[in-house]
Amino acid sequence: MERMTIIGLGLIGGSLGLALKATKLPNVEIVGYDTDTIAAVDARRVGAVDKTEHTLQRATANAGMVILATPIVAMRQVMEEMASGLRENCIVTDTASTKSLVMEWAGQLLPPHVSFVGGHPMAGKETAGIANADARLFAGKAYCIVPSPAATESAVKLVAGLVHLIGAQPLFIDAHEHDRYVAAVSHLPLVLSSALFTLVRGSPAWPELAALASSGFRDLTRLASGDPELSHDICLTNREAILHWLERMADELSRYRELLAEGQEEALFKHFTRVQLDRDTFMTAGPPTRPRVAADVPDAGEQLVSLLVGERLVRRAREIRKLLSERPPEGRTPPKGDGRPPEERRRP
Amino acid sequence: MERMTIIGLGLIGGSLGLALKATKLPNVEIVGYDTDTIAAVDARRVGAVDKTEHTLQRATANAGMVILATPIVAMRQVMEEMASGLRENCIVTDTASTKSLVMEWAGQLLPPHVSFVGGHPMAGKETAGIANADARLFAGKAYCIVPSPAATESAVKLVAGLVHLIGAQPLFIDAHEHDRYVAAVSHLPLVLSSALFTLVRGSPAWPELAALASSGFRDLTRLASGDPELSHDICLTNREAILHWLERMADELSRYRELLAEGQEEALFKHFTRVQLDRDTFMTAGPPTRPRVAADVPDAGEQLVSLLVGERLVRRAREIRKLLSERPPEGRTPPKGDGRPPEERRRP
Repeated sequence: MERMTIIGLGLIGGSLGLALKATKLPNVEIVGYDTDTIAAVDARRVGAVDKTEHTLQRATANAGMVILATPIVAMRQVMEEMASGLRENCIVTDTASTKSLVMEWAGQLLPPHVSFVGGHPMAGKETAGIANADARLFAGKAYCIVPSPAATESAVKLVAGLVHLIGAQPLFIDAHEHDRYVAAVSHLPLVLSSALFTLVRGSPAWPELAALASSGFRDLTRLASGDPELSHDICLTNREAILHWLERMADELSRYRELLAEGQEEALFKHFTRVQLDRDTFMTAGPPTRPRVAADVPDAGEQLVSLLVGERLVRRAREIRKLLSERPPEGRTPPKGDGRPPEERRRP
Repeated sequence: MERMTIIGLGLIGGSLGLALKATKLPNVEIVGYDTDTIAAVDARRVGAVDKTEHTLQRATANAGMVILATPIVAMRQVMEEMASGLRENCIVTDTASTKSLVMEWAGQLLPPHVSFVGGHPMAGKETAGIANADARLFAGKAYCIVPSPAATESAVKLVAGLVHLIGAQPLFIDAHEHDRYVAAVSHLPLVLSSALFTLVRGSPAWPELAALASSGFRDLTRLASGDPELSHDICLTNREAILHWLERMADELSRYRELLAEGQEEALFKHFTRVQLDRDTFMTAGPPTRPRVAADVPDAGEQLVSLLVGERLVRRAREIRKLLSERPPEGRTPPKGDGRPPEERRRP
């Protein structure tokens, strides 16, 4: 019986457990651990895990794979505490929303006989906790995979297989790239959502504004209801990239202010027409080209234990690990001018 | 047979038609007109109107009530063209997202024997057109009512009854108040949504960003897919108020940048906890107090033709009309420092 352990039984850990259990992997036991014993009991009750353990050490010892699904900031200590008890060739992965620091911690804290392969499912809800866990949470979603330089090829394959098994799309990516990209598409929206809410909520006219607020305001502020611990951890561990995108957003809003202040009817109309076209294209056609970070995925029916991965996926994983191993050791700050992408096309 | 005419058979006009038809008003004929003959044919086909006319004049002559549901900017010309043919005591209302200019046009262009009562349903979708019309679009939503100084009490009652009849909540409000408030809860979210999309879409990394974009990005940019004509008209007719809120949003984002840059863990955590609490309260409890602009509504079962309206509603409508009639004539710019609300509580 192979043991797969999930540390942290909240929305993501619980959903992973449910999704894995739904695949009915033969000879695999899903073990759970959470410092919150109520969450642990609930996870067992809803069938997200086969059993739970009372200590982190007991839960992780003898595990073939450990999945860290705790709050980001807590992962460092979890790694520290479980490191010495991990068995030979154990595969450790995580689900943190930011990757650079987590990869750094893994490199420093985990023993060399362990393969760390970072992960980040691009899925979530604003309702946290095991009570909201859902086996279908990852279905059709992108799932970033960030192999560490020391990870074995089979460990990378196994994590990709796991991702595939729960219905998600593996996407191989480097940690710093990841953090800069999610700062744009996840963390900037989070901060905007929160800022829009605090701005309007802080108005003396709030009672009237709230009475008039319709689906637009509700949708735009949805992320403001997200788990505060997650928002906090994201802001702490991806600060530079978020600050960068917040600056760019301020510039973009200045451009919109100019566009409005000029009041050029035709320019305004053309602009909004273009925006609608572009977004509709994005929503219907998806990403414009196969992104270079994408990976081939194994066939749908395959199971983790008999995983066969296409050549391109292996090649891409190799490239990334080569890239990483050639890179000089680095701190928290991404190497190229704190991650600022090259000069961008401007619209409007 | 009383004639009720809807000018403009898009999402809002079509939905109003469907909602009114669903109430099976006795002795009322719903007539429609649209410059787009295909929309007119479709409106008849889906049962949003009983019949359509080929000219604006034919559609509005002899109507007891005319509902303008065209694009905002087009309303001025529609008023001009139909004015001379409107019958004695005709009630004219509209559905425009901004009210100050529309009220001004009505005052200038409609004959004195007509009662204009402005309206704005706080409902919509990002999918425009009669094909998306829905009889339940207004159910449970706020519906702003802005009586003109010249409107008769019975005209105001009738429009409030109509609003009630289609399941919406009448909310009496002054035009400038309305425009400042919706700038915050509708137009600012619209511009933010559009700006977030154009910023991220304009990045050279767009293919990768699009592949990573999850529900957060999709929800936050939903309004960017809205009808470009509506966005354009809103920006043109409520420019000052939107610019004001865009400036304040820039300030709010600066405060968030400071909060992040300082990296005070406790302050960050407290902040996001407070935001979550406040938004959850808003979502579950609704507006914090009965807003002073709210109105009593007639009983649910009542029909337009036998409308009985509570005393408070009549009183509130009287107050608003009194306020308006005492006010000096005004231009596009709201009187108090271009509509800037008083100094606001600050958070964070």
